[in-house]
Amino acid sequence: MSDTYKDLMDISKRRGFIWPSFEIHGSASGFYDYGPLGKKLLDNIKEKWKNYYIQKEGFEEVKSTTIMSKPVFEASGHLSGFEDALTQCKECNNSFRADHLIEEHIEVEPDSLSNKKIEQKIENHNVRCPECGGTLGEVYSFNLMFKTNIGPGKGRAAYLRPETAQGIFVNFNYLYKYNRKSLPFGVVQTGRAYRNEISPRKGVIRMREFQQMEAEVFVEPNEKNHPNFSKVEKEELRLFPIKNQKEDKGYINISTKKAVEKNIIGSEILAYYLAFSKRILKDIGLNIQKIRFRQHLPEERAHYASDCWDIEGETDRFGWIELAGISDRGDYDLKKHAEKSGESLTAFKEFEEPKKLEKWVIEPNMDVLGPKHKQKADIIAEKLKEQDPQKIKKELENNSFILELDEETVEINSEEVNIQKTTKTIKGENIFPHIIEPSFGIDRILYLLMEHSYKKDKLGEGQRSYFNFKPEISPIDLAVFPLMKEEELKLEAEKIYEELNKEYEVVYDENGSIGKRYRRQDEIGTPYCITIDYETLEDDSVTIRQLTSGKQKRVEYKELKSTINDLFSNKKNFKDLK
Amino acid sequence: MSDTYKDLMDISKRRGFIWPSFEIHGSASGFYDYGPLGKKLLDNIKEKWKNYYIQKEGFEEVKSTTIMSKPVFEASGHLSGFEDALTQCKECNNSFRADHLIEEHIEVEPDSLSNKKIEQKIENHNVRCPECGGTLGEVYSFNLMFKTNIGPGKGRAAYLRPETAQGIFVNFNYLYKYNRKSLPFGVVQTGRAYRNEISPRKGVIRMREFQQMEAEVFVEPNEKNHPNFSKVEKEELRLFPIKNQKEDKGYINISTKKAVEKNIIGSEILAYYLAFSKRILKDIGLNIQKIRFRQHLPEERAHYASDCWDIEGETDRFGWIELAGISDRGDYDLKKHAEKSGESLTAFKEFEEPKKLEKWVIEPNMDVLGPKHKQKADIIAEKLKEQDPQKIKKELENNSFILELDEETVEINSEEVNIQKTTKTIKGENIFPHIIEPSFGIDRILYLLMEHSYKKDKLGEGQRSYFNFKPEISPIDLAVFPLMKEEELKLEAEKIYEELNKEYEVVYDENGSIGKRYRRQDEIGTPYCITIDYETLEDDSVTIRQLTSGKQKRVEYKELKSTINDLFSNKKNFKDLK
Repeated sequence: MSDTYKDLMDISKRRGFIWPSFEIHGSASGFYDYGPLGKKLLDNIKEKWKNYYIQKEGFEEVKSTTIMSKPVFEASGHLSGFEDALTQCKECNNSFRADHLIEEHIEVEPDSLSNKKIEQKIENHNVRCPECGGTLGEVYSFNLMFKTNIGPGKGRAAYLRPETAQGIFVNFNYLYKYNRKSLPFGVVQTGRAYRNEISPRKGVIRMREFQQMEAEVFVEPNEKNHPNFSKVEKEELRLFPIKNQKEDKGYINISTKKAVEKNIIGSEILAYYLAFSKRILKDIGLNIQKIRFRQHLPEERAHYASDCWDIEGETDRFGWIELAGISDRGDYDLKKHAEKSGESLTAFKEFEEPKKLEKWVIEPNMDVLGPKHKQKADIIAEKLKEQDPQKIKKELENNSFILELDEETVEINSEEVNIQKTTKTIKGENIFPHIIEPSFGIDRILYLLMEHSYKKDKLGEGQRSYFNFKPEISPIDLAVFPLMKEEELKLEAEKIYEELNKEYEVVYDENGSIGKRYRRQDEIGTPYCITIDYETLEDDSVTIRQLTSGKQKRVEYKELKSTINDLFSNKKNFKDLK
Repeated sequence: MSDTYKDLMDISKRRGFIWPSFEIHGSASGFYDYGPLGKKLLDNIKEKWKNYYIQKEGFEEVKSTTIMSKPVFEASGHLSGFEDALTQCKECNNSFRADHLIEEHIEVEPDSLSNKKIEQKIENHNVRCPECGGTLGEVYSFNLMFKTNIGPGKGRAAYLRPETAQGIFVNFNYLYKYNRKSLPFGVVQTGRAYRNEISPRKGVIRMREFQQMEAEVFVEPNEKNHPNFSKVEKEELRLFPIKNQKEDKGYINISTKKAVEKNIIGSEILAYYLAFSKRILKDIGLNIQKIRFRQHLPEERAHYASDCWDIEGETDRFGWIELAGISDRGDYDLKKHAEKSGESLTAFKEFEEPKKLEKWVIEPNMDVLGPKHKQKADIIAEKLKEQDPQKIKKELENNSFILELDEETVEINSEEVNIQKTTKTIKGENIFPHIIEPSFGIDRILYLLMEHSYKKDKLGEGQRSYFNFKPEISPIDLAVFPLMKEEELKLEAEKIYEELNKEYEVVYDENGSIGKRYRRQDEIGTPYCITIDYETLEDDSVTIRQLTSGKQKRVEYKELKSTINDLFSNKKNFKDLK
């Protein structure tokens, strides 16, 4: 049976998409490097995503450090809440996720069990080390953040960020000012994040150092609608809500609008970003038939999320994997960072109408108090102000009020003090914005794109494999070949290469038979190859060959550039070329 | 006296260029985040650099992990060679670079002193803690890499890369294959690098987490020329070679060609990248009058470099700072990684002519040995082959040869063995390529660009500050304003904003007086502002205002886009507009 993952890893290593990191020194699982083709594919995916979030949605981008100091993660909850239950084999010393080992023996989500309970399950069911069959040690919590220290000596404890989001939250005040103190606004960050997985066994699917594209939308707590909702409301979503998961029912295929109306998705804004994300993934080139939206079960939700929908993609070897998560993080993050830091992280919300606040105040009447109590008058006045105005007012209505000083009491009557009502106008209040977060994992999207684009067919005499990437996503746009290694053909081909390379990602190749050169480009998904042959020298025409069909068309050299432009901008179809 | 650094940090924080990282939780020195404008400026600088190295020079880009395992740095030499001499105050517990504390008391480079010697200098000159005047403790070595662990328990020791280069070197075999096994080829990587500085005190100039743009050029050891040298040979360089530094002489202004001819720069390829880098920095917008090329003194060269030239830029507060280093790393890195890993990291170099290798071989004559020695014949034959052919040949010329077996000796005569000369054709040999490395620090280039672009002048009634960034480098390209907050003007302005925003980085602003809005854009270096006023409604014309001159021109709306295109591509000058 063919194993797509194996095929893809083979192509990846051989052609320069993905390489195991520091392989010559014995690579570590969960670490991968991107070769030249992988890097270009990565950039093209990122550019597409940014085009949606930055150009279309108008979000701003920031770049924060990957090392952040300990208090950041005390506040974010990652120090206490971002842990796995672990056990080490007493014989072979390998470490395992204890909760995973008992999965088959329990009905509930293992996340909900304490370490002690997991330990008992291991004992009761005589679960042994999966590597050597040895006895397993005690179950303890292991934090998934990579730890380091800033500065010499013991230094200052710090961690590599487990999500790029925290770099946005801690800068809220700067960002709020940048957005001229108005809500809503959106901020994105793309970049590295780190999770020290215990023993990742899923190849490129579970990386310890990975890349995220995260957007954080700061909204007013009660305004979870979206102004452009009508633009996505007809988008069909394949939902897998909590109820359907628990009752073992299938998916619901439903329009975005109806999903909100029927309260399957809790808010318009969450639904908006589900539909918006579907469009991005489709535009990147994922097979939308292999995409679903799965709601997190309450027990699997991150500590900060009040609701979360994962966008999952189907893989051949690993089943459904998470590509993105759209969460309503509520006011969790800003509140926690404010509490921990003592800084205010709020937005000022103006009331629709200014509110009048009524307040009773105590005004000692010094004209009477002074002559009567002499040097004690000031002390009495101060003490009076500390009293409850309503209480004094009530007692004075029944004649007089006994004020207790440090060593004596004084009787106060209604001439000595005025109790008055004042009104203050308040224009608004400070609120913690809520945060809606569409968060994407780039590496997995890249892998899934490769898998969804991977095709095999028969062309001419031979079998071939190719990627049918969209032209704007493909790492290489064009290849230029001289038919033979003759000076005249080579000069012409180099000229065309130079010209096209100004605008496109082009490779020039003169080695091997033309058939082999086509196969080399097919294998990495280059959408069009241009060949310069003897006819070119006679009539200034070249051939353009299309990857997917393997067909060729002849184009005049002077129309080559505009034809290529039209093909890449979808103004023309290849099959309609003369 | 005005302090440019302070001015710039004030603008940076206020307007969203650079923010101290996790400031609300008490920031740590050496960590800075980029706000929206800083991020755009960063991207524009990177794009320019990549345009030179990737599009023009045809280098390939990779992206490797920032965490790398310990053996990588054992091989690279960073574990033993990347250390600072440190001392801690016994009273206030602050840590200091011990070598810096004794700088004024010594004649030699402090790098060349042992910890013990530095300790003696501290004692002899009674150097005290610069913070509290306390006694300083012993001097010890502190490694500048951030350490962490992969996996649970003690895990596997790993470090955050101190340079992006190592991620290229360890992938040499993959890259060599990607380049179809031919030299030279170039690879770039841009991204984060980390140095756990002891107590950085230079603000954004000395970051602990910073960004590099590195290029590694793999060349044949003896081919340190450059095919395009003639394209840069006239470029004038301001050199500060070792000799001039030691003899306290000034700079040498000299053409690139002459610098090589006079052997001031050791190789054509090093000189090529010096000149090439000057062009990039100039194109980014640095003031080339404040740039110099300083050769590393032998004692300050990194452990891997055989020659290195720093490109330094002049700052107001910090004097000359390093922006880039162009090093000849020789075969140091590949050799070390090969030794440590046991993998071959070489290129195959074909000889110009295949070489014939002569070799003497021993051929036992079994036809004679067999019948004579019976079952011992095979043992004798094997033993014979282990001998030195030249020696046997000589002895046989003098009759016979005594072969020692384990427990006896046998006399061998010239009939029992043939000594023959064979020739083998060898096409080439495996060599370690040499590496030429142009390495740039983005953060410092960004800061210096801000400083070199920072201007103050009087415009109209008031004083203003602005950045005269080049239009393609400026974070914001255009600003669009309706003159007043009237619906008609706003609609028109929004239309123009939408149109231009497809291609340019545009802000829309309707708040405050038009003068204030111009000032806001001036302060961040927006080259052109477009204002929609009452005339627009009458004759479809708008004003374009130029940042640097403060002057305005009226342009017809239908020509706006093409005018903007011409201004940005330098096809037109603002002053030549009608």
